Amino acid sequence: MTYPNDFFILANQLIEAGRFIDSKGWVPATSGNFSARLSDDSIAITVSGTHKGCLQQSDIMLIDSDAQSLDGKKPSAEAVLHTTLYKRYPDINAILHPHSMTATLASQIFKTEVVLQDYELLKALPGIDTHEARIVVPIFANDQNIPRLAEQVDRYIDQHGAIHAYIIAGHGLYTWGDSVLHALRLLETLDFLLSCELHLYGVKKI
Amino acid sequence: MTYPNDFFILANQLIEAGRFIDSKGWVPATSGNFSARLSDDSIAITVSGTHKGCLQQSDIMLIDSDAQSLDGKKPSAEAVLHTTLYKRYPDINAILHPHSMTATLASQIFKTEVVLQDYELLKALPGIDTHEARIVVPIFANDQNIPRLAEQVDRYIDQHGAIHAYIIAGHGLYTWGDSVLHALRLLETLDFLLSCELHLYGVKKI
Amino acid sequence: MTYPNDFFILANQLIEAGRFIDSKGWVPATSGNFSARLSDDSIAITVSGTHKGCLQQSDIMLIDSDAQSLDGKKPSAEAVLHTTLYKRYPDINAILHPHSMTATLASQIFKTEVVLQDYELLKALPGIDTHEARIVVPIFANDQNIPRLAEQVDRYIDQHGAIHAYIIAGHGLYTWGDSVLHALRLLETLDFLLSCELHLYGVKKI
Amino acid sequence: MTYPNDFFILANQLIEAGRFIDSKGWVPATSGNFSARLSDDSIAITVSGTHKGCLQQSDIMLIDSDAQSLDGKKPSAEAVLHTTLYKRYPDINAILHPHSMTATLASQIFKTEVVLQDYELLKALPGIDTHEARIVVPIFANDQNIPRLAEQVDRYIDQHGAIHAYIIAGHGLYTWGDSVLHALRLLETLDFLLSCELHLYGVKKI
Repeated sequence: MTYPNDFFILANQLIEAGRFIDSKGWVPATSGNFSARLSDDSIAITVSGTHKGCLQQSDIMLIDSDAQSLDGKKPSAEAVLHTTLYKRYPDINAILHPHSMTATLASQIFKTEVVLQDYELLKALPGIDTHEARIVVPIFANDQNIPRLAEQVDRYIDQHGAIHAYIIAGHGLYTWGDSVLHALRLLETLDFLLSCELHLYGVKKI
Repeated sequence: MTYPNDFFILANQLIEAGRFIDSKGWVPATSGNFSARLSDDSIAITVSGTHKGCLQQSDIMLIDSDAQSLDGKKPSAEAVLHTTLYKRYPDINAILHPHSMTATLASQIFKTEVVLQDYELLKALPGIDTHEARIVVPIFANDQNIPRLAEQVDRYIDQHGAIHAYIIAGHGLYTWGDSVLHALRLLETLDFLLSCELHLYGVKKI
Repeated sequence: MTYPNDFFILANQLIEAGRFIDSKGWVPATSGNFSARLSDDSIAITVSGTHKGCLQQSDIMLIDSDAQSLDGKKPSAEAVLHTTLYKRYPDINAILHPHSMTATLASQIFKTEVVLQDYELLKALPGIDTHEARIVVPIFANDQNIPRLAEQVDRYIDQHGAIHAYIIAGHGLYTWGDSVLHALRLLETLDFLLSCELHLYGVKKI
Repeated sequence: MTYPNDFFILANQLIEAGRFIDSKGWVPATSGNFSARLSDDSIAITVSGTHKGCLQQSDIMLIDSDAQSLDGKKPSAEAVLHTTLYKRYPDINAILHPHSMTATLASQIFKTEVVLQDYELLKALPGIDTHEARIVVPIFANDQNIPRLAEQVDRYIDQHGAIHAYIIAGHGLYTWGDSVLHALRLLETLDFLLSCELHLYGVKKI
């Protein structure tokens, strides 16, 4: 197929994001998946089964807004988690899902949600202008049935209002932004804050 | 505007410092701000909202000694913390403020101050020639009102005498030196020692 | 001697793997050994006593399926652990044995085995398609008598069925795959999961 | 002065060692000092006050076997610790002294000595051929009087026999080998094992 022009620009941004994310150790083996929305609402997304630290352009494919392949390649099994978020949030254009140890441990320790407050860095999240904000990152049970998992996320947002990110237990973080670079900054922010919470939990529990 | 010649030299030093500081993971997302004083008392400082690991010359701007923009760019909201230190300490020419996890956790665990002693590395601080020195790094409550925060710092120094650095709670460390490189060495020193204290706290508390 | 053509291809893959493994800190000093099976059943393996982060082609040698040198070079003292695995598993073509701190600590803390479950990343292991799998990594006592150690491993597999990896206590992890790259992905996976278990152990025990 | 030919070779080895050691974070600020013995018994040693991660040839100087400067440059204040070791051990030709956090914490936690046993990696130390060896790394109180500190080390060896390394409390590790590269491998080994001991101490104490 002939890819739209912005596909190549976004694919390169996802490749660069993958290199950065891998340099932090957040995508061991072939874990993680990333996507970016094109101007025609189709979505560039990583194919299944590649190492995210050394993505090639051929490792990025195109799906439609219902997660159907547009170029015959096989998308990540979790593509529906991406399309569900794009449908709900018209303003976001990129979603990043790494498997960092921080998010994995946070889910095993905090079980249902992580509460973040009193951090200056919270101001890096959209719409937050003081460290006195209170941000909740919900944790959902892992599920190999992805449409069911997507519904669980959707229902949570219906009930609790907008969120900046969520964690799938024993699995990893999903976050999103208006561009790949923006989502990457939110990812740095959230991983830093989750890591702070894990350290403090150890000390407080002791 | 036409920048003075030493602006470009100092801007490059701040760019290099940012790369080093980011390589240590001390400026997640767009956190942190850095400055250096010019010979005419104007101050080169990072603009608001950029990632400090990949600063461009256009991300460094010029303010006067009262933190007013001299080139129309928008300085970091915390510029007044820099100018307050430059006024108090005529001998310092550079200030670095990263958001390291170490300083963030130290503030949450030690609350009001961190005491550093019995470390050979203390000799890296100006005027210290033995590991038997006792250095106090005060911790101030975070405050979105920056002039008020600057006054809090000023008042502390009035009462307690000269300090080498301070921490803003849940936020990060401020340190300074007679050059950008000198401030960078102090930053390495302090982050190392804060990290030692955090490790020892865990063990001692257990 | 004249090496077969695939020797050079596999030697280069082992050199690359060593660079990656060293970048993670998993082969301190001259620890670790790696091998890959050629099409004629001879085995390319690292020689004794070199740093695995900067292997040269001359640091890779050829042994037969009984661990006898085919080129006059001296193989790692642990070569028999490799040949024992190749005999048992006709489908594997590469074995990696680093000395990571994670595996060392896991052996000292968990003593006889590490159980891995409820991790999405388990799906990176061959034949696993859900996080609900339960994977056991056995730990064997260290022994300078390598044939005896190899027998211990063999006996364990006879009794317990196929395994994905094992740990030698105070020493390191052995894992294997159908190619060097595949074994490397399994190594990333296992080190990540062992590290999670160590973190959780600390928290749970507290 | 005209430096002997082997000075330049050894200086380059020390520069490379510094880059490696700094990449591990073991020489914060301007801490640490390194040396290598020339064939005429003079000693190439790092000058005082430079960052060891970016040494230039001009940062390496020449002292005689009594730590007197031979080229007018100022050696590290700890040069006598180096010459004392070279006098005692005719077979060693390089000494490395970083300020790693591991050694700093080990001294604060274990107080008088660190005992290392049941580690396969012990075999990287000269003369050790089994993990069943028991290695003691003594810890000496820090002292700004370097000749007195050197005597303390000397007396310990007189009483306890040969050692592979020692730690100065709150300060760092000294280790040595028959070449710069050999000393570097021992340093990797010891830092890894000290780090294991620190982790296990935390768990056992809990």
